Amino acid sequence: MQFGSDNQTGASSQVLEMLTVANSGFTHGYGDDHWCAQATEDLKKVFSCDLEVYFVATGTAANSLALSCLVQPWETMLCHHQAHILQDESTAPEFFSGGARLIPISQKAGKLMLAHLARYFHSLADEPPHTPRVGALSITQANEAGLVYTPRELTDLCSFAHKHKMHVHMDGARFANAVAALGCSPADLTWKAGVDVLSLGATKCGGMVAEAVLFFNRKLAESFIHRRKRSGHLVSKGRFFGAQFVGWLKDNHWLELAGHANKQAHHLEKKLASFSSISLKWPREANEIFVTMPRQLADFLHNSGAEFYQWPANALPPGIELEEDEVFTRLVSSFVTTDEHIDHFCRLIHKYESTNNLGR
Amino acid sequence: MQFGSDNQTGASSQVLEMLTVANSGFTHGYGDDHWCAQATEDLKKVFSCDLEVYFVATGTAANSLALSCLVQPWETMLCHHQAHILQDESTAPEFFSGGARLIPISQKAGKLMLAHLARYFHSLADEPPHTPRVGALSITQANEAGLVYTPRELTDLCSFAHKHKMHVHMDGARFANAVAALGCSPADLTWKAGVDVLSLGATKCGGMVAEAVLFFNRKLAESFIHRRKRSGHLVSKGRFFGAQFVGWLKDNHWLELAGHANKQAHHLEKKLASFSSISLKWPREANEIFVTMPRQLADFLHNSGAEFYQWPANALPPGIELEEDEVFTRLVSSFVTTDEHIDHFCRLIHKYESTNNLGR
Amino acid sequence: MQFGSDNQTGASSQVLEMLTVANSGFTHGYGDDHWCAQATEDLKKVFSCDLEVYFVATGTAANSLALSCLVQPWETMLCHHQAHILQDESTAPEFFSGGARLIPISQKAGKLMLAHLARYFHSLADEPPHTPRVGALSITQANEAGLVYTPRELTDLCSFAHKHKMHVHMDGARFANAVAALGCSPADLTWKAGVDVLSLGATKCGGMVAEAVLFFNRKLAESFIHRRKRSGHLVSKGRFFGAQFVGWLKDNHWLELAGHANKQAHHLEKKLASFSSISLKWPREANEIFVTMPRQLADFLHNSGAEFYQWPANALPPGIELEEDEVFTRLVSSFVTTDEHIDHFCRLIHKYESTNNLGR
Amino acid sequence: MQFGSDNQTGASSQVLEMLTVANSGFTHGYGDDHWCAQATEDLKKVFSCDLEVYFVATGTAANSLALSCLVQPWETMLCHHQAHILQDESTAPEFFSGGARLIPISQKAGKLMLAHLARYFHSLADEPPHTPRVGALSITQANEAGLVYTPRELTDLCSFAHKHKMHVHMDGARFANAVAALGCSPADLTWKAGVDVLSLGATKCGGMVAEAVLFFNRKLAESFIHRRKRSGHLVSKGRFFGAQFVGWLKDNHWLELAGHANKQAHHLEKKLASFSSISLKWPREANEIFVTMPRQLADFLHNSGAEFYQWPANALPPGIELEEDEVFTRLVSSFVTTDEHIDHFCRLIHKYESTNNLGR
Repeated sequence: MQFGSDNQTGASSQVLEMLTVANSGFTHGYGDDHWCAQATEDLKKVFSCDLEVYFVATGTAANSLALSCLVQPWETMLCHHQAHILQDESTAPEFFSGGARLIPISQKAGKLMLAHLARYFHSLADEPPHTPRVGALSITQANEAGLVYTPRELTDLCSFAHKHKMHVHMDGARFANAVAALGCSPADLTWKAGVDVLSLGATKCGGMVAEAVLFFNRKLAESFIHRRKRSGHLVSKGRFFGAQFVGWLKDNHWLELAGHANKQAHHLEKKLASFSSISLKWPREANEIFVTMPRQLADFLHNSGAEFYQWPANALPPGIELEEDEVFTRLVSSFVTTDEHIDHFCRLIHKYESTNNLGR
Repeated sequence: MQFGSDNQTGASSQVLEMLTVANSGFTHGYGDDHWCAQATEDLKKVFSCDLEVYFVATGTAANSLALSCLVQPWETMLCHHQAHILQDESTAPEFFSGGARLIPISQKAGKLMLAHLARYFHSLADEPPHTPRVGALSITQANEAGLVYTPRELTDLCSFAHKHKMHVHMDGARFANAVAALGCSPADLTWKAGVDVLSLGATKCGGMVAEAVLFFNRKLAESFIHRRKRSGHLVSKGRFFGAQFVGWLKDNHWLELAGHANKQAHHLEKKLASFSSISLKWPREANEIFVTMPRQLADFLHNSGAEFYQWPANALPPGIELEEDEVFTRLVSSFVTTDEHIDHFCRLIHKYESTNNLGR
Repeated sequence: MQFGSDNQTGASSQVLEMLTVANSGFTHGYGDDHWCAQATEDLKKVFSCDLEVYFVATGTAANSLALSCLVQPWETMLCHHQAHILQDESTAPEFFSGGARLIPISQKAGKLMLAHLARYFHSLADEPPHTPRVGALSITQANEAGLVYTPRELTDLCSFAHKHKMHVHMDGARFANAVAALGCSPADLTWKAGVDVLSLGATKCGGMVAEAVLFFNRKLAESFIHRRKRSGHLVSKGRFFGAQFVGWLKDNHWLELAGHANKQAHHLEKKLASFSSISLKWPREANEIFVTMPRQLADFLHNSGAEFYQWPANALPPGIELEEDEVFTRLVSSFVTTDEHIDHFCRLIHKYESTNNLGR
Repeated sequence: MQFGSDNQTGASSQVLEMLTVANSGFTHGYGDDHWCAQATEDLKKVFSCDLEVYFVATGTAANSLALSCLVQPWETMLCHHQAHILQDESTAPEFFSGGARLIPISQKAGKLMLAHLARYFHSLADEPPHTPRVGALSITQANEAGLVYTPRELTDLCSFAHKHKMHVHMDGARFANAVAALGCSPADLTWKAGVDVLSLGATKCGGMVAEAVLFFNRKLAESFIHRRKRSGHLVSKGRFFGAQFVGWLKDNHWLELAGHANKQAHHLEKKLASFSSISLKWPREANEIFVTMPRQLADFLHNSGAEFYQWPANALPPGIELEEDEVFTRLVSSFVTTDEHIDHFCRLIHKYESTNNLGR
């Protein structure tokens, strides 16, 4: 019953196997090897375009390195108020960019929309050098509320951004889940919509430790190798990062893993809807479900071995306030979530409701 | 009719004279001279306490150097949404602090109040190292809306801050105006209320180029000399900075200058209240007045030689939206604002209203 | 015949196996798992002391994160003129430390000795805040010339450093090779000699991607978790880093791997000594050999499939200048270097010498 | 008898007077005023070219801001081993550049020469991203040893630098002294020789607090206004900086001041040559003299009211070692150094020598 995070899993067996294959023999270090070359070719095919690819060990590194290529230290990076780069990556974006500024503009909406951008620009004091210059827009796909952006929405955001001299970064820690959920091509959700650079995460969806930064706008990548090296993110045995991606992408493996996670989240959501003690905060779109429940129930579930995290109140939609004895939680499914995990979890809720004479 | 900013003036004659006196002879460089020593003694007397004092050339340097002593690069600095450090100092706070994060918490209120702090902490996700740690609170006195904090308000803010392991910085670019407006002692508005460090600005109120950073909490000053030197803010001929403060503080000169500015703002406010085309946005408390007026009137005034700045819409109180043909402006008085400046300005408005058959 | 670098190998089978074992099931992320706990316990036993351990993906990250805990941005980091942190890690030490300064003090000697430290301090202008303050000493063990420091030498360096208010960092990318070469205990080469923090590299000696930062001086570790997170070096699936170290340390595996590499370097050195076209620049002590050879020979070897790197002329001892047609190269053995690699390599040299009527 | 530093003087009366004139009336802030405009025009005339000019308060700010426009954080800045930016400005160059690296290459010579550059490049390991990229060359004119570079020497250095993709910065804290000493045009010593940007210091030679950054290569100035603002170096009452330069440049005032300082240094040098207890270390070229003398004499002079600084041993030429009871000192003349200062100083030395039966 692990719904804590999709990073609490191991690697998929196909990824692990590829790592083992890659282990034998000598290769050049620092990414100058045929595994990285193969992974790069595979990514070009998956995204149907030429691109620059760099592998790193963490999503925070991928995001911050990417952003640091898009902004000057006296510029701003606009994002959703729950963006991982804003809420969960310490001050990494500031560190890598040399002190550029993150500005949340989504006004508590589930997704960052064109109207938010327009409104931000409408009331913006724009007097450089006194005011920082607008530099980049960062969009998470699937986002931190488990919601996905359609190609149309992305195109609107990117067009506006480019018109206002911003570059666009996409945090794709759960990009696979978004692709699986929307049924669009990876290209439609990225460069065709105007995304300049994508942090593509394999770790949460079957990788071991594998993130890639993909530059569709290749001239923005110019300084990347220097930034990666001086931040300690150029791994010496680079082959193992290439190999993970080769294994992950092979035969559509990545989308099968993501599809499974989404499907299981869908099942869980449907089942949860039948409980009176559980309140879904908004409809699920990928592999994350957000609910409120009595604190007593949460405690009971935790004590019975279920894993899931309480979520910060500032992620609630506007106007929704938590009751004193209520908790706001996130439930995440993954590529290894089984029906049994879900059934067990629901049986516990049922037991709780029965004991407390709840239920419909 | 210069109401653009109080930094559009020269220095007061008393300050200028002291500079001339200080010019003769040799002294050691870098602040190791009797003028700086004298200014330090004078400041101790004015604030009725022992303290560490450092002189710098700009308010941005004073604020950012002070803040950088209060926070680690993985911490946050809470402030008002219109704080000068957030809106008008580029990304200086990030630069000096090595990438700490500014977070506005005032929710569009005129002043940052205890309730804002409490609310922020209530919904805060606090999971270091993922989330940045809370590090400092910065309060501007008099603030960017021209409002002043009472000793009671400051004490409440500082107590809360200290209880939550934040240090407190005060941006005192217009501290003199606040002291003059409130009639409190400098001590009451700073260390007695719990302020750890004050950026004390003389420039806007009679100085030439003179800001001081005052550490009431002296152990926070430990790294200051290194930070000031490596940011290029240790001036070689330090005597001229000490001399300006000696001249500024002598015989209560600073409070007379500030009192005059406040008084003239009061007169201007009273006169403006009688015009139907001018709408005061909130009551004045120090030397700044915020009004909306028809764009046509603003143009007429500018063309007639009046100086004042249009102000960004994001400084308006919640719920107030600008009409299409309306402008939001700030009017600032200074130590050299004369009755004639005010009368001339008002005559122009009167003329505009007469011509357009307005007026009450 | 791969003598290019010990990072051109895969992982040892014992390490790889442990990764596979660790892959199954769920664990908490970010190092909060039993693999990391086990690895920490193992390291405490190996070093016979209590300590703080943090795992990261690269040696550059380990070094720079460690150093950043030892110095302020207005301080210096003293090191050998060929130190990896100075020559091969871009400006990572500056980036992580916020701009502290690396200063080479070894005056072209093979090892950084007490006399170098003494001489540096003798002629040092020490006038803070004008001059940067001395902050840390970094020693590489085994060092970039393949030489090892004895416990006595380390104790002398560390004592001097501590007396002058410097903290001591050890770059242990090849620490295993040093332990195996010296036959000392890990404790003797670190905390007992006065080392405050060690970057312990497993990658070059049987790991896949595994470096650990060990704080013997535990209070220096206070900010580490924040620094690691904001530099993107906190991996989500931390178990895989713990698992590598568990596998690496188990049953003295790490020292067997290092011992093998050293032994093979010893064999190679002995054999090379018999060739007139090869000139050993200084006696080998661990797993690296530095030689000069005719450019023609180097080309022949490369063309015949041998891997080794040309080394920069600034690593030559004082007084030694390269001839026009001569190259300076480094030969590195590793845990997978076989007798056959060595024999093949030497047969090629023999062939070259015969063809050219060289040889003794 | 103040020979401590040329920054221990006040401002020249012409500069002070201009400040007083500039004090009256209103002007726009932040350099948008007619004084700054006038100073800019004056500088264009003095340097016989178009250029970008920015005023700041200190030489450290001028140097570091200028350098930060020339290098990326993963690049190096080559300089003389006694360069002020290396020895006397804390880690300001690292701070402003985001962590670029200063590398002294002059090998203890009095001036940085073409041969040093050539030698440095000869033995340089150039393997980005592992090695930092070479970015800029900084030359001080007149330099920290009081020596001046001829147009020919500058042209050679700049040509080599540009050929190797470096930009060239000139630290002109004593540029006026160099111009006066060489009798060249300012253009010959800067843009005509290939200098891209000059830090022009007025402070040490008659200014109060006035430094200018002049970009001859104007496209390098692109980010300057942002860098200046976010480092707190955009002064609000900018007119006072423009006014100082207007006063300083008017009617060749700056060169008269510098010429006087040089001339007095010449007189002092000539007189010192006659004392057996004073040993001139190298011939004076501008307004600084470097000598060794018995510690007893130095103490006697200090006790008799003379001001001069002991100088660090690492500034001595190679092969020269200080005796135990000997001190190395610097004597600086300035625009206010009188014959009487010099005579008094020499009378004291004479007295010391007589008392100790020294003298020729």
